[in-house]
Amino acid sequence: MEEEALEFARNAHASQLRKYTGESYIEHPIRVATMVKTVPHTTEMVCAAYLHDVVEDTPVSLEDIQRKFGSTVATLVDELTDEFIKENYPDLNRKSRKEREVKRQANMSQAAKTIKLADVVDNTRDIIENDPDFARRYIPEMEALTEALQGGEFKLLMRACYQVQRGKLKLAEIRKRPVH
Amino acid sequence: MEEEALEFARNAHASQLRKYTGESYIEHPIRVATMVKTVPHTTEMVCAAYLHDVVEDTPVSLEDIQRKFGSTVATLVDELTDEFIKENYPDLNRKSRKEREVKRQANMSQAAKTIKLADVVDNTRDIIENDPDFARRYIPEMEALTEALQGGEFKLLMRACYQVQRGKLKLAEIRKRPVH
Repeated sequence: MEEEALEFARNAHASQLRKYTGESYIEHPIRVATMVKTVPHTTEMVCAAYLHDVVEDTPVSLEDIQRKFGSTVATLVDELTDEFIKENYPDLNRKSRKEREVKRQANMSQAAKTIKLADVVDNTRDIIENDPDFARRYIPEMEALTEALQGGEFKLLMRACYQVQRGKLKLAEIRKRPVH
Repeated sequence: MEEEALEFARNAHASQLRKYTGESYIEHPIRVATMVKTVPHTTEMVCAAYLHDVVEDTPVSLEDIQRKFGSTVATLVDELTDEFIKENYPDLNRKSRKEREVKRQANMSQAAKTIKLADVVDNTRDIIENDPDFARRYIPEMEALTEALQGGEFKLLMRACYQVQRGKLKLAEIRKRPVH
Protein backbone atom coordinates (compact mmCIF):
# COMPACT_ATOMS: atom_id res chain seq x y z
CA MET A 1 0.00 0.00 0.00
CA GLU A 2 2.93 2.39 0.67
CA GLU A 3 4.14 2.20 -2.94
CA GLU A 4 0.56 2.85 -4.12
CA ALA A 5 0.26 5.89 -1.89
CA LEU A 6 3.55 7.24 -3.22
CA GLU A 7 2.45 6.77 -6.85
CA PHE A 8 -0.99 8.25 -6.10
CA ALA A 9 0.63 11.32 -4.53
CA ARG A 10 3.14 11.59 -7.40
CA ASN A 11 0.27 11.65 -9.93
CA ALA A 12 -1.83 14.05 -7.87
CA HIS A 13 1.00 16.59 -7.44
CA ALA A 14 1.83 15.96 -11.12
CA SER A 15 3.88 18.86 -12.44
CA GLN A 16 3.79 20.92 -9.22
CA LEU A 17 7.21 22.16 -8.13
CA ARG A 18 8.63 23.10 -4.72
CA LYS A 19 8.70 26.89 -4.48
CA TYR A 20 12.39 27.55 -3.79
CA THR A 21 14.29 24.55 -5.03
CA GLY A 22 12.29 23.99 -8.22
CA GLU A 23 12.40 20.24 -7.58
CA SER A 24 9.30 18.04 -8.17
CA TYR A 25 6.79 18.57 -5.36
CA ILE A 26 6.76 14.82 -4.59
CA GLU A 27 10.33 15.07 -3.22
CA HIS A 28 8.90 16.79 -0.11
CA PRO A 29 6.33 14.09 0.83
CA ILE A 30 9.04 11.48 0.13
CA ARG A 31 11.36 13.16 2.66
CA VAL A 32 8.50 13.39 5.18
CA ALA A 33 7.66 9.67 4.76
CA THR A 34 11.37 8.76 5.04
CA MET A 35 11.59 10.63 8.35
CA VAL A 36 8.42 8.95 9.64
CA LYS A 37 10.06 5.57 8.89
CA THR A 38 12.95 6.44 11.26
CA VAL A 39 10.61 6.33 14.30
CA PRO A 40 7.99 3.78 15.44
CA HIS A 41 5.25 3.94 12.79
CA THR A 42 2.45 2.09 10.97
CA THR A 43 1.94 1.53 7.23
CA GLU A 44 -1.02 3.91 7.42
CA MET A 45 1.25 6.64 8.80
CA VAL A 46 3.70 6.20 5.92
CA CYS A 47 0.83 6.38 3.40
CA ALA A 48 -0.55 9.51 5.07
CA ALA A 49 2.95 11.06 4.97
CA TYR A 50 3.06 10.57 1.19
CA LEU A 51 -0.50 11.91 0.87
CA HIS A 52 -0.36 14.70 3.46
CA ASP A 53 -0.55 17.63 1.00
CA VAL A 54 -2.79 16.02 -1.61
CA VAL A 55 -6.17 17.23 -0.35
CA GLU A 56 -4.79 20.69 0.50
CA ASP A 57 -2.98 21.28 -2.80
CA THR A 58 -4.57 19.14 -5.55
CA PRO A 59 -8.11 18.34 -6.82
CA VAL A 60 -8.07 14.99 -4.94
CA SER A 61 -10.80 14.77 -2.27
CA LEU A 62 -10.79 13.11 1.12
CA GLU A 63 -13.42 10.69 -0.27
CA ASP A 64 -10.97 9.61 -2.99
CA ILE A 65 -8.39 8.84 -0.27
CA GLN A 66 -10.93 6.98 1.84
CA ARG A 67 -12.08 4.84 -1.09
CA LYS A 68 -8.55 3.99 -2.17
CA PHE A 69 -6.65 3.74 1.15
CA GLY A 70 -9.32 3.23 3.83
CA SER A 71 -10.53 5.30 6.74
CA THR A 72 -7.39 5.19 8.92
CA VAL A 73 -5.29 6.86 6.21
CA ALA A 74 -8.15 9.22 5.30
CA THR A 75 -8.56 10.32 8.93
CA LEU A 76 -4.83 11.07 9.17
CA VAL A 77 -4.84 13.05 5.91
CA ASP A 78 -7.90 14.94 7.17
CA GLU A 79 -6.05 15.85 10.39
CA LEU A 80 -3.05 16.96 8.30
CA THR A 81 -5.16 19.19 6.03
CA ASP A 82 -5.30 22.83 7.12
CA GLU A 83 -8.83 23.87 8.07
CA PHE A 84 -8.30 27.60 8.75
CA ILE A 85 -7.27 28.59 5.23
CA LYS A 86 -8.08 31.94 3.64
CA GLU A 87 -10.69 30.35 1.38
CA ASN A 88 -12.68 28.99 4.34
CA TYR A 89 -12.15 32.06 6.58
CA PRO A 90 -11.76 35.12 4.29
CA ASP A 91 -12.46 37.51 7.19
CA LEU A 92 -9.59 36.28 9.40
CA ASN A 93 -6.03 37.54 8.94
CA ARG A 94 -3.04 35.19 8.70
CA LYS A 95 -2.24 35.51 12.42
CA SER A 96 -5.78 34.57 13.55
CA ARG A 97 -5.97 31.70 11.10
CA LYS A 98 -2.61 30.29 12.20
CA GLU A 99 -3.56 30.60 15.89
CA ARG A 100 -6.77 28.63 15.36
CA GLU A 101 -4.95 26.05 13.26
CA VAL A 102 -2.37 25.49 16.02
CA LYS A 103 -5.13 25.04 18.61
CA ARG A 104 -6.68 22.37 16.38
CA GLN A 105 -3.29 20.73 15.76
CA ALA A 106 -2.57 20.51 19.51
CA ASN A 107 -5.49 18.07 19.68
CA MET A 108 -4.49 15.86 16.75
CA SER A 109 -3.74 12.16 17.22
CA GLN A 110 -0.19 11.16 18.21
CA ALA A 111 0.26 9.64 14.72
CA ALA A 112 -0.76 12.85 12.94
CA LYS A 113 1.51 14.90 15.24
CA THR A 114 4.45 12.66 14.35
CA ILE A 115 3.87 13.14 10.60
CA LYS A 116 3.38 16.90 11.06
CA LEU A 117 6.70 17.11 12.97
CA ALA A 118 8.49 15.60 9.95
CA ASP A 119 6.70 18.18 7.77
CA VAL A 120 7.95 20.97 10.09
CA VAL A 121 11.54 19.68 9.88
CA ASP A 122 11.53 19.69 6.07
CA ASN A 123 9.69 22.98 5.56
CA THR A 124 11.64 24.90 8.22
CA ARG A 125 14.99 23.78 6.79
CA ASP A 126 13.74 24.88 3.35
CA ILE A 127 12.63 28.35 4.48
CA ILE A 128 15.76 29.03 6.56
CA GLU A 129 17.98 28.23 3.62
CA ASN A 130 15.94 29.85 0.86
CA ASP A 131 13.79 32.69 2.21
CA PRO A 132 15.28 34.52 5.23
CA ASP A 133 12.76 37.36 4.74
CA PHE A 134 9.72 35.08 5.06
CA ALA A 135 11.55 33.25 7.90
CA ARG A 136 10.89 36.24 10.18
CA ARG A 137 7.19 35.44 10.03
CA TYR A 138 7.52 31.70 9.52
CA ILE A 139 9.92 30.69 12.34
CA PRO A 140 7.67 32.03 15.16
CA GLU A 141 4.72 30.19 13.57
CA MET A 142 6.76 26.98 13.48
CA GLU A 143 7.78 27.51 17.11
CA ALA A 144 4.12 27.71 18.19
CA LEU A 145 3.26 24.71 15.99
CA THR A 146 6.12 22.59 17.34
CA GLU A 147 5.06 23.40 20.90
CA ALA A 148 1.55 22.17 19.98
CA LEU A 149 2.99 18.97 18.48
CA GLN A 150 4.42 17.75 21.80
CA GLY A 151 3.17 14.19 22.19
CA GLY A 152 4.42 13.22 18.72
CA GLU A 153 7.46 10.89 18.49
CA PHE A 154 10.28 12.49 20.47
CA LYS A 155 13.09 12.00 17.92
CA LEU A 156 11.13 14.05 15.38
CA LEU A 157 10.12 16.61 18.03
CA MET A 158 13.84 17.00 18.74
CA ARG A 159 14.65 17.48 15.05
CA ALA A 160 11.82 20.02 14.64
CA CYS A 161 13.09 21.91 17.72
CA TYR A 162 16.61 21.84 16.24
CA GLN A 163 15.46 23.44 12.99
CA VAL A 164 13.28 26.06 14.71
CA GLN A 165 16.02 27.02 17.18
CA ARG A 166 18.55 27.11 14.32
CA GLY A 167 16.16 29.46 12.50
CA LYS A 168 15.84 31.69 15.57
CA LEU A 169 19.62 31.91 15.95
CA LYS A 170 20.03 32.66 12.26
CA LEU A 171 17.44 35.47 12.41
CA ALA A 172 19.14 36.95 15.50
CA GLU A 173 22.44 36.90 13.61
CA ILE A 174 20.93 38.66 10.58
CA ARG A 175 19.47 41.37 12.85
CA LYS A 176 22.91 41.95 14.38
CA ARG A 177 24.67 42.51 11.04
CA PRO A 178 25.56 46.12 10.30
CA VAL A 179 23.44 47.75 7.58
CA HIS A 180 25.57 48.85 4.63
CA MET B 1 16.14 35.85 48.37
CA GLU B 2 17.65 35.30 44.89
CA GLU B 3 20.79 37.29 45.72
CA GLU B 4 21.14 35.32 48.96
CA ALA B 5 20.83 32.01 47.11
CA LEU B 6 23.50 33.13 44.63
CA GLU B 7 25.90 34.12 47.45
CA PHE B 8 25.14 30.93 49.39
CA ALA B 9 25.92 28.84 46.28
CA ARG B 10 29.05 30.88 45.55
CA ASN B 11 30.36 30.19 49.07
CA ALA B 12 29.39 26.53 48.97
CA HIS B 13 31.13 25.86 45.64
CA ALA B 14 34.01 28.03 46.96
CA SER B 15 37.15 27.25 44.96
CA GLN B 16 35.58 24.51 42.78
CA LEU B 17 36.27 24.96 39.07
CA ARG B 18 34.36 23.81 35.97
CA LYS B 19 36.19 20.79 34.54
CA TYR B 20 36.94 21.98 30.99
CA THR B 21 36.89 25.74 31.06
CA GLY B 22 38.65 26.20 34.39
CA GLU B 23 36.21 28.99 35.26
CA SER B 24 34.70 29.29 38.77
CA TYR B 25 32.02 26.65 39.29
CA ILE B 26 29.43 29.31 40.18
CA GLU B 27 29.41 30.51 36.54
CA HIS B 28 27.41 27.39 35.64
CA PRO B 29 24.54 27.85 38.17
CA ILE B 30 24.48 31.54 37.18
CA ARG B 31 23.93 30.58 33.52
CA VAL B 32 21.23 28.08 34.54
CA ALA B 33 19.41 30.69 36.65
CA THR B 34 19.71 33.24 33.82
CA MET B 35 18.05 30.79 31.42
CA VAL B 36 15.27 30.02 33.93
CA LYS B 37 14.57 33.77 34.10
CA THR B 38 13.86 33.81 30.32
CA VAL B 39 10.71 31.66 30.79
CA PRO B 40 7.76 31.92 33.22
CA HIS B 41 9.27 31.23 36.67
CA THR B 42 9.02 31.84 40.41
CA THR B 43 11.62 33.27 42.81
CA GLU B 44 11.92 29.80 44.33
CA MET B 45 12.84 28.37 40.92
CA VAL B 46 15.60 30.96 40.46
CA CYS B 47 16.96 30.17 43.95
CA ALA B 48 16.87 26.43 43.22
CA ALA B 49 18.69 27.06 39.91
CA TYR B 50 21.53 28.77 41.80
CA LEU B 51 21.55 25.98 44.40
CA HIS B 52 20.94 22.99 42.12
CA ASP B 53 24.42 21.41 42.47
CA VAL B 54 25.10 22.39 46.07
CA VAL B 55 23.80 19.25 47.80
CA GLU B 56 25.30 16.98 45.14
CA ASP B 57 28.76 18.54 45.07
CA THR B 58 29.44 20.33 48.38
CA PRO B 59 29.10 19.55 52.13
CA VAL B 60 25.84 21.57 52.31
CA SER B 61 22.84 19.42 53.31
CA LEU B 62 19.22 19.59 52.23
CA GLU B 63 18.40 20.58 55.83
CA ASP B 64 20.69 23.61 55.50
CA ILE B 65 18.77 24.64 52.36
CA GLN B 66 15.40 24.09 54.02
CA ARG B 67 16.38 26.14 57.09
CA LYS B 68 17.74 29.02 55.00
CA PHE B 69 15.40 29.10 51.96
CA GLY B 70 12.25 27.19 53.02
CA SER B 71 10.67 23.97 51.91
CA THR B 72 9.67 24.96 48.34
CA VAL B 73 13.30 25.66 47.40
CA ALA B 74 14.51 22.61 49.35
CA THR B 75 12.05 20.32 47.58
CA LEU B 76 13.23 21.61 44.18
CA VAL B 77 16.90 21.13 45.11
CA ASP B 78 16.06 17.64 46.36
CA GLU B 79 14.41 16.81 43.00
CA LEU B 80 17.49 18.21 41.21
CA THR B 81 19.93 16.11 43.27
CA ASP B 82 20.90 12.81 41.65
CA GLU B 83 19.76 9.82 43.70
CA PHE B 84 21.28 6.96 41.71
CA ILE B 85 24.93 7.89 42.23
CA LYS B 86 27.76 5.35 42.54
CA GLU B 87 28.07 6.01 46.28
CA ASN B 88 24.42 5.04 46.92
CA TYR B 89 24.36 2.16 44.38
CA PRO B 90 27.91 0.75 44.15
CA ASP B 91 26.65 -2.48 42.51
CA LEU B 92 24.98 -0.75 39.53
CA ASN B 93 26.96 0.29 36.46
CA ARG B 94 26.71 3.77 34.94
CA LYS B 95 24.09 2.69 32.38
CA SER B 96 21.73 1.19 35.01
CA ARG B 97 22.15 4.15 37.31
CA LYS B 98 21.42 6.65 34.52
CA GLU B 99 18.35 4.68 33.42
CA ARG B 100 16.89 4.73 36.93
CA GLU B 101 17.73 8.41 37.33
CA VAL B 102 15.88 9.27 34.09
CA LYS B 103 12.81 7.32 35.23
CA ARG B 104 12.81 9.35 38.44
CA GLN B 105 13.36 12.62 36.55
CA ALA B 106 10.40 11.90 34.23
CA ASN B 107 8.21 12.24 37.34
CA MET B 108 9.70 15.47 38.66
CA SER B 109 7.59 18.62 39.07
CA GLN B 110 7.20 20.92 36.06
CA ALA B 111 9.34 23.51 37.86
CA ALA B 112 12.20 21.06 38.48
CA LYS B 113 12.01 19.87 34.85
CA THR B 114 12.34 23.46 33.66
CA ILE B 115 15.48 24.04 35.77
CA LYS B 116 16.93 20.69 34.69
CA LEU B 117 16.38 21.62 31.01
CA ALA B 118 18.52 24.74 31.52
CA ASP B 119 21.16 22.51 33.16
CA VAL B 120 21.07 20.19 30.09
CA VAL B 121 21.52 23.16 27.72
CA ASP B 122 24.61 24.42 29.55
CA ASN B 123 26.26 21.04 30.20
CA THR B 124 25.62 19.65 26.70
CA ARG B 125 27.09 22.76 25.05
CA ASP B 126 30.13 22.40 27.35
CA ILE B 127 30.72 18.71 26.56
CA ILE B 128 30.24 19.11 22.78
CA GLU B 129 32.79 21.89 22.69
CA ASN B 130 35.32 20.47 25.12
CA ASP B 131 35.16 16.67 25.25
CA PRO B 132 34.06 14.99 21.98
CA ASP B 133 35.27 11.61 23.31
CA PHE B 134 32.99 11.71 26.36
CA ALA B 135 30.23 13.16 24.14
CA ARG B 136 29.77 9.71 22.56
CA ARG B 137 28.49 8.44 25.89
CA TYR B 138 27.04 11.74 27.14
CA ILE B 139 24.86 12.84 24.19
CA PRO B 140 22.67 9.67 24.19
CA GLU B 141 22.23 10.10 27.96
CA MET B 142 21.16 13.72 27.42
CA GLU B 143 18.76 12.63 24.67
CA ALA B 144 17.02 10.19 27.06
CA LEU B 145 17.00 12.82 29.80
CA THR B 146 15.56 15.55 27.54
CA GLU B 147 12.81 13.16 26.43
CA ALA B 148 11.98 12.60 30.11
CA LEU B 149 11.92 16.36 30.73
CA GLN B 150 8.96 16.95 28.38
CA GLY B 151 6.47 18.96 30.41
CA GLY B 152 9.10 21.55 31.38
CA GLU B 153 8.87 25.03 29.80
CA PHE B 154 8.85 24.59 26.03
CA LYS B 155 11.40 27.30 25.15
CA LEU B 156 14.02 25.52 27.27
CA LEU B 157 12.93 22.09 25.97
CA MET B 158 13.57 23.48 22.48
CA ARG B 159 17.01 24.78 23.46
CA ALA B 160 17.92 21.45 25.08
CA CYS B 161 16.75 19.59 21.94
CA TYR B 162 18.85 21.97 19.83
CA GLN B 163 22.02 21.21 21.80
CA VAL B 164 21.42 17.44 21.86
CA GLN B 165 20.65 17.30 18.13
CA ARG B 166 23.69 19.49 17.43
CA GLY B 167 25.75 17.02 19.46
CA LYS B 168 24.35 14.06 17.49
CA LEU B 169 25.16 15.75 14.17
CA LYS B 170 28.67 16.60 15.36
CA LEU B 171 29.31 13.00 16.45
CA ALA B 172 28.04 11.69 13.10
CA GLU B 173 30.42 14.09 11.36
CA ILE B 174 33.40 12.92 13.45
CA ARG B 175 32.60 9.28 12.62
CA LYS B 176 32.60 10.10 8.90
CA ARG B 177 36.05 11.74 8.93
CA PRO B 178 38.83 9.62 7.41
CA VAL B 179 41.28 8.19 9.97
CA HIS B 180 44.84 9.46 9.39
